[in-house]
Amino acid sequence: MNPAALPRLTHARVPLTRGVRVVDASGQARQIALPDERALTLYVDKQELVTLMTLGQEPELLALGYLLNQGLITSAAEIESVTVDWDIGAAALRTRSGIVAGNSWAERTARRTITSGCGQGTAFGQLWEDLEGLQLPPGPVLRQSALVHLLARMRGLPSVYGLAGSVHGSALWRGDELLMHVEDVGRHNAIDTLAGWMAMQRLEGAGLVLYTTGRLTSEMVLKAARLRIPVLVSRNGSTASGQQWAAKLGLTLIGRASGRRFLCYSGAERIGFEPAAMPAPS
Amino acid sequence: MNPAALPRLTHARVPLTRGVRVVDASGQARQIALPDERALTLYVDKQELVTLMTLGQEPELLALGYLLNQGLITSAAEIESVTVDWDIGAAALRTRSGIVAGNSWAERTARRTITSGCGQGTAFGQLWEDLEGLQLPPGPVLRQSALVHLLARMRGLPSVYGLAGSVHGSALWRGDELLMHVEDVGRHNAIDTLAGWMAMQRLEGAGLVLYTTGRLTSEMVLKAARLRIPVLVSRNGSTASGQQWAAKLGLTLIGRASGRRFLCYSGAERIGFEPAAMPAPS
Repeated sequence: MNPAALPRLTHARVPLTRGVRVVDASGQARQIALPDERALTLYVDKQELVTLMTLGQEPELLALGYLLNQGLITSAAEIESVTVDWDIGAAALRTRSGIVAGNSWAERTARRTITSGCGQGTAFGQLWEDLEGLQLPPGPVLRQSALVHLLARMRGLPSVYGLAGSVHGSALWRGDELLMHVEDVGRHNAIDTLAGWMAMQRLEGAGLVLYTTGRLTSEMVLKAARLRIPVLVSRNGSTASGQQWAAKLGLTLIGRASGRRFLCYSGAERIGFEPAAMPAPS
Repeated sequence: MNPAALPRLTHARVPLTRGVRVVDASGQARQIALPDERALTLYVDKQELVTLMTLGQEPELLALGYLLNQGLITSAAEIESVTVDWDIGAAALRTRSGIVAGNSWAERTARRTITSGCGQGTAFGQLWEDLEGLQLPPGPVLRQSALVHLLARMRGLPSVYGLAGSVHGSALWRGDELLMHVEDVGRHNAIDTLAGWMAMQRLEGAGLVLYTTGRLTSEMVLKAARLRIPVLVSRNGSTASGQQWAAKLGLTLIGRASGRRFLCYSGAERIGFEPAAMPAPS
């Protein structure tokens, strides 16, 4: 791909938390921080697409990743620029070819599924069908000690969650290396932002681990598979459909992951079990 | 209102959990239960509206409450029947007046906002504007001991969460009395189901307390206010926008509520502080 083909992004930034006065159970007033939540309306070639409620950490990557994860574009190269203006809560995406004018755009946005997740939750029609028949290739092996290391690092990261609670975090890992960490009010937004980041880095999902604090519902599994990421880890649990989709797609699904403990719902062959990293018998 | 005007509902039921084989951190296989997650497509007068991912506990009430909470209907009396068929994952709603044929239907469904929440997350355009200028009337007072009782009861309820994790719960309370409890894979679905139940009971929100396990994002506050419920309680926290909306609407917003502790983000005048129910100094 031609390096010139990456979209130009603004770098609009806003405070992510806000000081609020609350009253505690003893009737005393206190000052605490809460995460902010802003409306960001996406316009594609000046046509309004959707309004996302977001923490606002990486709005340009979120907008780009949203279009990618919804299957509305197949490559970041289709986008010429993403311009975010927080004063009006807008992200203007300009396509290179005027995609909105074509029939395929209307088709792609025609159907919508409201999903169960902690997050923006819309999946436009084609998305589910796109993955039919996909089988993620085997490997690489995630050593158990690398997983324990990942969980410890995630717990120790500076975060809006640590400061103000009530947000979800997502992170991309390659082996022992943390590539990118992002938080948002919805777990979908966080993963879409990572998708936008991967596109800007020209990074493929193969060999990566996706960590999320959110629950592993079916659409989270679909998003990871769509990015071709073979391992999805959460400190939270899974639904039965999440597990079924993961098994079908050949994705390694790990939940309830904390400290040295976890449950592997699917694809345990990608885990390199190591007795030394095992939990002490309780 | 004429009692005959309530919609007829089917009573379609499915298992809510599924046994799944997992591998734990010591490499051992185990059998656990996971909550199920099913696609339910809503059709209004045979026109497809939306697909919700749901646990499936009360699909008829969910479908009805969804239309009410999205402002697509203003009263349950507009609906003649809700027919759920799990074999095809469909909820067919029939209106009394053929609402879909009218122009207002197209207008009402034209705009959508994808919200940040743990849940279905869509709010059709008019919703936000509808509440402009609303001010919930003062009172009644929620005694602190009643709140502590509510939290203890919620913790002790038999639940899919207790059995299989990964779902959100919501409940309606009047004083010390638990009126209705429902769980779903998304916190929005759970609250929409309660809205459907309230409509079928001809119950107004005034004087009620709404409990949710989910985070208090702006759209959760808007849903409570839309139902005219003056007190919203969560074991989870709030976003800054959730707090701002609650303050604007005169809603009492209580989060981080567990045991004898809580934070009141807004509307503390509705809490009857009682020294005996206060946490011991730590």
